[in-house]
Amino acid sequence: MATDQATPPVDRRQQAFRTPAVDVDELTALLDGRYREVRELVRANLVEHAQILVDAEEMGQAEFRERVKDVVVHMASTGQTGMGFPTEYGGGGDIGASLAAFETLAFGDLSVLVKVGVQFGLFGGAILQLGTKIHHDRYLADLISGRTMGCFAMTETGHGSNVQALGTVARYDAEAEEFVITTPDDASRKDYIGNAAAHAELAAVFAQLEVDGESHGVHAFVVHIRRDGAVVDGVRIEDCGDKMGLDGVDNGRIWFDGLRVPRTALLNQFAEVTPEGRYLSPIDNPNRRFFTMLGTLVQGRVCVGGAGINAAKVALTIATRYADRRRQFEASSTDEEERLLDYGMHQRRLFPMIAENYALHFAQEVVAGQLHDVFSGPGPVDTGTDEQARRMLEARAAGTKALGTWHATRTIQECREACGGAGYLSENRFTALKADTDVFTTFEGDNHVLLQLVAKGLLTDYSSEFEDMDQFGMVRFVAGVAVETVVERTAVHKLFQSIRDLLPGGDEWDQEAGLLDPNYQLAMLRFREEHMLGGVARRLKRGIDSGMSPGAVFSRVQDHVIATARAHTERLVLEAFVAKVATVPDKDTKVALNLLCDLYALTTIEADRAWFMEHGRLSSARSKAISREVSDLCRKIRPIAVDLVDAFGVPDALLRSPELLAWGE
Amino acid sequence: MATDQATPPVDRRQQAFRTPAVDVDELTALLDGRYREVRELVRANLVEHAQILVDAEEMGQAEFRERVKDVVVHMASTGQTGMGFPTEYGGGGDIGASLAAFETLAFGDLSVLVKVGVQFGLFGGAILQLGTKIHHDRYLADLISGRTMGCFAMTETGHGSNVQALGTVARYDAEAEEFVITTPDDASRKDYIGNAAAHAELAAVFAQLEVDGESHGVHAFVVHIRRDGAVVDGVRIEDCGDKMGLDGVDNGRIWFDGLRVPRTALLNQFAEVTPEGRYLSPIDNPNRRFFTMLGTLVQGRVCVGGAGINAAKVALTIATRYADRRRQFEASSTDEEERLLDYGMHQRRLFPMIAENYALHFAQEVVAGQLHDVFSGPGPVDTGTDEQARRMLEARAAGTKALGTWHATRTIQECREACGGAGYLSENRFTALKADTDVFTTFEGDNHVLLQLVAKGLLTDYSSEFEDMDQFGMVRFVAGVAVETVVERTAVHKLFQSIRDLLPGGDEWDQEAGLLDPNYQLAMLRFREEHMLGGVARRLKRGIDSGMSPGAVFSRVQDHVIATARAHTERLVLEAFVAKVATVPDKDTKVALNLLCDLYALTTIEADRAWFMEHGRLSSARSKAISREVSDLCRKIRPIAVDLVDAFGVPDALLRSPELLAWGE
Repeated sequence: MATDQATPPVDRRQQAFRTPAVDVDELTALLDGRYREVRELVRANLVEHAQILVDAEEMGQAEFRERVKDVVVHMASTGQTGMGFPTEYGGGGDIGASLAAFETLAFGDLSVLVKVGVQFGLFGGAILQLGTKIHHDRYLADLISGRTMGCFAMTETGHGSNVQALGTVARYDAEAEEFVITTPDDASRKDYIGNAAAHAELAAVFAQLEVDGESHGVHAFVVHIRRDGAVVDGVRIEDCGDKMGLDGVDNGRIWFDGLRVPRTALLNQFAEVTPEGRYLSPIDNPNRRFFTMLGTLVQGRVCVGGAGINAAKVALTIATRYADRRRQFEASSTDEEERLLDYGMHQRRLFPMIAENYALHFAQEVVAGQLHDVFSGPGPVDTGTDEQARRMLEARAAGTKALGTWHATRTIQECREACGGAGYLSENRFTALKADTDVFTTFEGDNHVLLQLVAKGLLTDYSSEFEDMDQFGMVRFVAGVAVETVVERTAVHKLFQSIRDLLPGGDEWDQEAGLLDPNYQLAMLRFREEHMLGGVARRLKRGIDSGMSPGAVFSRVQDHVIATARAHTERLVLEAFVAKVATVPDKDTKVALNLLCDLYALTTIEADRAWFMEHGRLSSARSKAISREVSDLCRKIRPIAVDLVDAFGVPDALLRSPELLAWGE
Repeated sequence: MATDQATPPVDRRQQAFRTPAVDVDELTALLDGRYREVRELVRANLVEHAQILVDAEEMGQAEFRERVKDVVVHMASTGQTGMGFPTEYGGGGDIGASLAAFETLAFGDLSVLVKVGVQFGLFGGAILQLGTKIHHDRYLADLISGRTMGCFAMTETGHGSNVQALGTVARYDAEAEEFVITTPDDASRKDYIGNAAAHAELAAVFAQLEVDGESHGVHAFVVHIRRDGAVVDGVRIEDCGDKMGLDGVDNGRIWFDGLRVPRTALLNQFAEVTPEGRYLSPIDNPNRRFFTMLGTLVQGRVCVGGAGINAAKVALTIATRYADRRRQFEASSTDEEERLLDYGMHQRRLFPMIAENYALHFAQEVVAGQLHDVFSGPGPVDTGTDEQARRMLEARAAGTKALGTWHATRTIQECREACGGAGYLSENRFTALKADTDVFTTFEGDNHVLLQLVAKGLLTDYSSEFEDMDQFGMVRFVAGVAVETVVERTAVHKLFQSIRDLLPGGDEWDQEAGLLDPNYQLAMLRFREEHMLGGVARRLKRGIDSGMSPGAVFSRVQDHVIATARAHTERLVLEAFVAKVATVPDKDTKVALNLLCDLYALTTIEADRAWFMEHGRLSSARSKAISREVSDLCRKIRPIAVDLVDAFGVPDALLRSPELLAWGE
């Protein structure tokens, strides 16, 4: 970042620049997008329950869990949480609205958000997507209203990222026309299950289905784990105990000891067991069936990514407003009115994160839109839907979730530090923001595992080999015979071609174009992605060819694999931002957004400028020029920084921070 | 990080390498150093009170505060906390021992650590260093035993980093032979004062001394704020309320409303007010007096840096042991026994942090040693002590504190994520580690402000202009007339020369030397420091010369200033590590340490490789070679990784994490 360039040239450039007048409402409307009304409803609900932010500190765990549940049920009564369900059961029939509502909820207490996610997203989503009319009729109305609480019992202690290998078993007993659900060992206990420790009456349980001695892989069942508040026979539940945050979410562990449930407990959208014990499925290939089932649950990842991005907005709003009023030296001479935000370092700390937040927000809007389109097909689950669209969506959701949640962790930390010791007091939001969002990077899929999934998608180019590989890691992909076939036949030349097609003018783009030319910025990110991907494919193939063990090959290429997935996702994020800005009329709002978009693009390139230099795409001089341009953009953003965070539309009542935000101290 | 290099050459290198057999006890002894016995005493005390880690979760705030106080008092009874005080008052008479004891305390509950720091370091240190025999006789024995609790009332709400400008006033009333202490406005209330909300009977209060209408700057007073548990008249105390962590420390705010204290309340090591109201001081220059007083408190920064480094060891131990036993895919075929720690990415996440921890540990040992030497002079405070040694110590303490506490924040976060969702449960240590250490980056001096202090020291080359500049920011330094003088007269040529002297062969070092040659590694870091420093000096001067406002000049150069201070400190850290390894006999322990030292050096260079390329000190090919070498070092460290963290000597009872660390799941 540091350069020795003299400053005057920058000055001259700056004199020609006019600071845009930001219309905060207009910008908020742009961010809120198609679902402005939905977001306003959530804001109103959050303000109504703003006291819960204080309760989170003051109440004991048991009391706070009840408080959170009450707020969730109340929010359900406003229609806020049921927007993604069919109207005939009291839902809103609009999946996009449901996503917008959920991510806006991240402005408030995050136990409420996670409880909503568990009840309506995970549990409700399983009933809706994996169940059929019999389950919908029986459960949907009550779960949408919050009258019946449920949980999503997938994760097991010993099988965190590897759902296909989970150990819980459901054996069909044709005599009794029942399934018998059993936890065979402690590694197969269900773990970290939200809603399980206190509130759930029902559970969507994932288990290995066995019929007549034959295993058919993982299927989901809806079962009672409590009746009228009491845990049923055959089920044992333990509280997970204290956590870093999310105190209002009752996470628990569940063991099944021969629990008997009726045949109709099988959520039978993709598979059926007849009364006499015949297994039937419209999808023959068991792997394909498994991934089709799991694919319906992609919504969870989209939701967590959006939650991270929006939680970060709260931190950015507080830190930016604080820095705009706080003087570094209160006792300085009065003509030296510098505020913290006037300092170059402080701008460098905060503004790239504001720009990244905008970029991720618009990228998230694209993912949410795609999810809406894919899942708003003819039926609740349509296996005929364009499979490629689904897989692109899954990869995009995985990448955005990883980047969005890491953004949250990093941003909240930096904002806390930027508020000094005062940021450490709980009456400001950072305590809860940090503790509650921390787990986002690892739940609904560990970020590193998700990026491997993205990379695998890129490598296989969504080819037909996909369904023969496990979804949850490159290891077995590399280890299996599939690797040679895939890498040889498809990846190396086909992928190169497909990505090269994206580059304007193929490899002939102008490496000396203006730094603020979005075509230049995009070409840089596209080149990086293409080059990294080719490198990964070659290294995998060479490693296997040289006779190294697949595990060793993978271990050595893993950081390259993950860097590639990140490069891919950053390219998608920048494309989304550029595309969004292109839709805005040529007025001041567009000028402001262009500053942010340039700042996002150039800080992304700057962060990896060593790679670009190593690969001959950036000279030393141009690399330094990028750093200067970033600092220059920060100075241009300075006068509108507060407007830019105010446009997030986080209600004042949710910011708390009375001392940090008090004016005219 | 990602490269497309074929892997076989690395293999050949690796075949020649023999994994060292690590003697864990020997390595622990090396880390423990001169104060092994002291550290063992602290470990034993921590294990005895290990239950407090559980109490921290289970007790309410009020109860836990008492619990922490009891543990502190009990530890005091073992001599652990009084090692730095004179033996005649019951202390141990060994400042180095006191630092070793304090930093080892960071393996346990950090409320205990901070309470100890407040009572014995800050409050006790003020009495010892700023007071004279009358104060020592009156207070030391009782404070060393913990019979009397005290607090350190320096920080004010509106004057966080700017102690010289604080607002509390102490007026001398010659008639009554008393000082009258007053808080003039809310910005001048004492804030975040540890021990103030519940336990302190005494306070070391920093206030502007006024005698006969004349102000003499900030001085310290020892005053009763409570007697027998009741707050005295003239004092108002408010609880700071809930914090992110450190629940067992009772932080409070204090206002003084004309509190009358006797003349002898002035801690009069550096200044005296006679009964009739004459002000006397052996140091004429008020600035020099102020910084001499503050300089005696450098111990606090050294302590916080050490605490951060040692808290990070707990996280590294848990995450490394966990990754060594956890399989990514439990259900893989049995011949595929990969553990998490076998994965390249996981090694890349954890091992550079282990290496950095060792590096910082040895750098901290150097700082602690210097502090011991400087403060073990003839008297408790000896203004005749080599002033340059003191200033070098202050700069070194500031830099090491910044790097050590950022290391803690980053390391603990990464280790939490590396343990997946399980890391989120409080029964593992991450919840407390994260929440409790978070404030380290901003207390005892915000890290960015501290690095500016380091840079200022470099720029002025500890010249005589130093005392005319404020200590807490470059702003007024740049703004003042001093700047031109300093930059012109001393910095540009003198500094260049002084740093060039450090380079082996001046600028003629071998840029193509072996990557694992410590002379090469050090030359790289020295070159960077020299070049950055020269650039900063030139930019400051050019900016001022061109007529820009000083504030604007500073704002633009600030990130460069901070990068320079960081580069300087990293060079010191590497030097400390290299020097330590050189003292170790040529056996396996040395081989192991060399792997870590190389890894620290090369990851430090790798992280800034863009800068080195931009400045012509690294070719693309060599930059890529460094990344490959780092991965290679990680593979070599893999088999000894658990030994390396076990050598930290964190007692098992303090790790908790029963599920994460259970063997043979």
